[in-house]
Order: sequence, then structure tokens, then C-alpha cells
Amino acid sequence: MAHDAPNPTDVLISEVGPRDGLQSVKATMPTADKLRWIDALVAAGLREIEVASFVPARLLPQMADAAEVVAHAVRHAGVTVMALVPNLRGAEAALRAGVHKLTMPVSASRAHSLANVRKTPEDMVEEVRAIAQLRDAIAPGVKLEAGISTAFGCTLQGLVPEDDVIRLAAMCVAAGADESGLSDTVGYANPAQVRRLFRRLRSEIGSHAGAAHMHNTRGLGLANCLAAWDEGVRTFDSSLGGLGGCPYAPGASGNVVTEDLVFMFEAMGVRTGISLENIIAARTPLAAGLPGEPLYGMTPDAGLPKGFTPPR
Amino acid sequence: MAHDAPNPTDVLISEVGPRDGLQSVKATMPTADKLRWIDALVAAGLREIEVASFVPARLLPQMADAAEVVAHAVRHAGVTVMALVPNLRGAEAALRAGVHKLTMPVSASRAHSLANVRKTPEDMVEEVRAIAQLRDAIAPGVKLEAGISTAFGCTLQGLVPEDDVIRLAAMCVAAGADESGLSDTVGYANPAQVRRLFRRLRSEIGSHAGAAHMHNTRGLGLANCLAAWDEGVRTFDSSLGGLGGCPYAPGASGNVVTEDLVFMFEAMGVRTGISLENIIAARTPLAAGLPGEPLYGMTPDAGLPKGFTPPR
Repeated sequence: MAHDAPNPTDVLISEVGPRDGLQSVKATMPTADKLRWIDALVAAGLREIEVASFVPARLLPQMADAAEVVAHAVRHAGVTVMALVPNLRGAEAALRAGVHKLTMPVSASRAHSLANVRKTPEDMVEEVRAIAQLRDAIAPGVKLEAGISTAFGCTLQGLVPEDDVIRLAAMCVAAGADESGLSDTVGYANPAQVRRLFRRLRSEIGSHAGAAHMHNTRGLGLANCLAAWDEGVRTFDSSLGGLGGCPYAPGASGNVVTEDLVFMFEAMGVRTGISLENIIAARTPLAAGLPGEPLYGMTPDAGLPKGFTPPR
Repeated sequence: MAHDAPNPTDVLISEVGPRDGLQSVKATMPTADKLRWIDALVAAGLREIEVASFVPARLLPQMADAAEVVAHAVRHAGVTVMALVPNLRGAEAALRAGVHKLTMPVSASRAHSLANVRKTPEDMVEEVRAIAQLRDAIAPGVKLEAGISTAFGCTLQGLVPEDDVIRLAAMCVAAGADESGLSDTVGYANPAQVRRLFRRLRSEIGSHAGAAHMHNTRGLGLANCLAAWDEGVRTFDSSLGGLGGCPYAPGASGNVVTEDLVFMFEAMGVRTGISLENIIAARTPLAAGLPGEPLYGMTPDAGLPKGFTPPR
């Protein structure tokens, strides 16, 4: 299967723009533009893309074409096609659409969880269990990730105890998730905290430790990714042009910019498998499908250093 | 003497805005505004400030009031007042004005050095030697830093061999500089390179290893500061509002933003001695003195995290 292909790179950049980005903006990108954008992302070398969210279209009209987008994306060999699912019903739709991987957000902040999905974190673990059972029954090859959101703090609750985060991540794995990753949903994380939490996560759940999903809200996105890399994290979520963030967390903004993240790793000699020229070119179909939407990123503006070749 | 006061903090943030920032913008900030801004920086807890450049006023009219600014700044007890000097003549003026510390840029890129000051790096080492001798003769308590510019690459020359950088830093110390720091003048640095070069620098010149002067041109400014911190660097140059960069290096832009750097360290529990509220407030006199000039920084826009208190 495409998503089980051997991995010749050092890190996996998991592009979340077509889901996280597009569901955060007011405009709805036409399906044809989404598909062109996803094709450009694949052409740049991305091997994991979160392409859609399986939620009711009345709540998120931007995602109404989720099944169609998945059906297109899975035609690309070697690409893991992910979808966000908020619950069992969404998971069933995503599995039937043919995704390779599900990601289920589970908030470590009780206040954020109740405000966002009207469920406690413990309720959400039961939802993870139900999704895992469904997956086992109808699509056993599909991976299930629990994304522990507000893992580094919450705009509603403030501090989120680290014990709560680690316990929740372990509960999700015990309930059947293949991985638990940590998300800085509101941009509160700092490098010391990132190191501490990912160290604890790996010590608690070992190879089930998942992606670092950092935000750049206070400018620390790349520093936090570096800190996670130092702790052995090898999967990083980011978004082309920095599109998106969490629309349900007041004051939150700003995914890590894929272009800058790829530049940082490639400049360090850490292989991403992604072409810097082509990932910058992938901004063109994104901009075409979302006219007027601001795109972020310093590397696209500054250009590559003179004579730049990634050290090997 | 004020600049020899005991240091109860973990890192020294060296604010370069009044020099590096102001000499990079077209407008000339009126002297009274400069003094108000410097006072606000001191009130926020900054203990080292590069307040001026001692260059001919016909070349940099923004710095024509350098001696007056120094005379004001040195009245603040506990603050190290620095000035940039491009040559012996500037050093003499700065010493006579009463600065506590001189910083002399010495470019590791031969192309940049010739384009910028029409001297080779070796010529500049001789200038450092002459400045050190003058300092010994007329103001022996004053510190002299050589700032090795283009240490991580150059927009003119491209790659700058690491051996050249380390050798030049050691030559400056041998010529009488108290410290040699490394500057990413054009924003080419990456964290792996920062770690490698500062490790070599410390191994070569020990406690004479000076500040990390990083730029945010490609978004990696804070990640590079984190990398330098990991290698034991304890002095960091930055600029309020990210003002400045190197006006002589085409395509360069963007000092590390003081506000974001202070937030990163304080959030990590690394003591800067700087009040986040007051450093953000220090943007007001800066903006008042430079109407219309764009100021950068994510933390001032996003605000501090809910319930934020630096861990101790």
C-alpha cells in the first residue's frame, strides 16, 4: 500500500493546510482548486497530507466535498491521505471514503473540550475506542492518530497540567489509537516545555508517540519544532503559507509555515524529501483558490540563500 | 562601575535597536525621542544597549548625535552602554564620549568586507589591534567586542568557510578584543550550523566567545537563538520591534525581535531580567519617534498566554 512505502527521509512533514487551513478561513475553496493544490503539494514531495475534515456540511461548508477530495488524493501513490474526524460518525464517513489515516482531536483542557465538542476528555477517549473498533472491523489497515490538543496550554483554562496531557495521550493509545501527538492549539508552547512533554510522552507510550503540531502565534513555532526534533520527534504538522490555526480557540492563529519548516530542516541537513522550489511553487494554486487570503512565510519572501544546497 | 555589577540573570539580552535599527531606516529619529526610547528600554530591565554608531555624520545622519546619546545613556546605573565603531577614528570618538563597550564589525566574507569597508578581514584585525591599544591607553576599563559578521554566509560570496570564521574570531581576540561574537548578518544561519560554529568558537577561544547576533530573515531567528543557548551562549543581540538588519547586505532584513526573544526565554524559565509588559510598552516611544515605520513581533500582537507566569 502506498502509505506503507519505505521512507528514505529523516522527518515526515505532514501538511495540514487543506484541512486545518481551509476550515479556518471564511471562503470555501472550490473543489477543483483543492485538487490542483493537493497535486502541487504531492509534486513538491509531501507524503502525508490532511486533506479534509469529515464534519456535517452545515457546520463547515468548506469541507462539504471531503469524500470527493479524498477520492482524488488517494490516487497519488506513496502519499498518506489523512482526514480529521471529530467523532464516530465522521470516522465512518472517512473510512468509507478511503482515507489511509484518521486524526481525532482530543483536548487535554476540559474547558476547551466542553466548549469545542461539548464532551469531556474522558468522553472523547471513549469515542476514540469506538472509532478504533470500527476501524478494526471495516478498514483494519487504516491508522488512527489521537491529536492531544491544548497540550501546552489553553486560552480558556490557562495552564493545562502536564500529567493530564500525558495521561490522556496514554489513554488514547490504550483505547486503540496507533499514535498520540501533541498540539499547541493556541500557540502557548515554549521549547523547554516541548522537550519536557515529548520526553515524557515517549517514555510513557514509546513508539506510539506521534506528531508535533506547533503554532507560530508568538513566533516560537520553528524553535518549538527544533526542540521537538531534539527529543526525537520525527513527524511535524505544518501548513503551506501558515494557513489556519484553531477557529474554536479565541485568540489563536498561525500554523507553522511549511516552507520555513522545510527550509530549516533542509538547511540543517535533515532530509524532508521535499523540494524547496516546488513547495514554494505550491503557493500559486493555493492563492488561486483563495483570492485575497493572506499567506505567511519568510523563506518565500526572502528566497533561498545564495548557492544554497542542503548539506548531505 | 555600573557595567561590572553582579548579574542575577541567566542570559543577557543586548538591545541593538537604537544603533542597528535606527541606522537601517531612512528617517532620523530626533534625539529627544531616542533618549525617551532608551529610558523605556532601561525601565524594562535591559542592561546592555547598543545606543549609537560612531561614524561620520555625512555617511549616517541618523547617528550624528551619537555622543549626546551616549552621555545620556551612561547616567543609567547598571546599564552597559555600547557603541558600534567601524574603525580607530570612530573608536576614539566613542571612548571620549564615555561608552562602556565598543563593538567592531569584522566580516568573515572577503567580498562583504571589501564591499562594506573596502578592507580585507586581515586589515580589519589590524584595526581591532589599533583600537585595543588605544583603549588600553586612554580607557582601559572599556570592553571591546569583535562582531564576526557574515559568519553564517553572505549574499555576495555565498558560502563562508567555517574555518575562516573561527580563525578570524581567534585573530581578533589575539589582537586584543575581549570577545568575538558571531553574526548572521544576512539571515542564512540554521540551527545545526549555529551549534557547530558556537561549539567550535568556544573550543577555540573559551570565555572570549561572545554574543549570538541572529536575524529572522527566513523565520529561523528564535530557533537559531535556541540552538546557541543550547551550546552555552548567554548573550543575545536583538532589536525592539525587529527594527533593522544590515543595510549593506542586499536582501538582508530583520533582526530578532526582542519582545519575542524575551518571551521565549522567560517562558522557558530562563531569566532575562526583563519585564515582558514593560518591554512591550517600550514600543510606544519607538513608534512615536519613527512615525509610520513598521514594527514586527508576534508576542506584542498575540499578548501573553492566559495566566502566564515565568517558571522559576
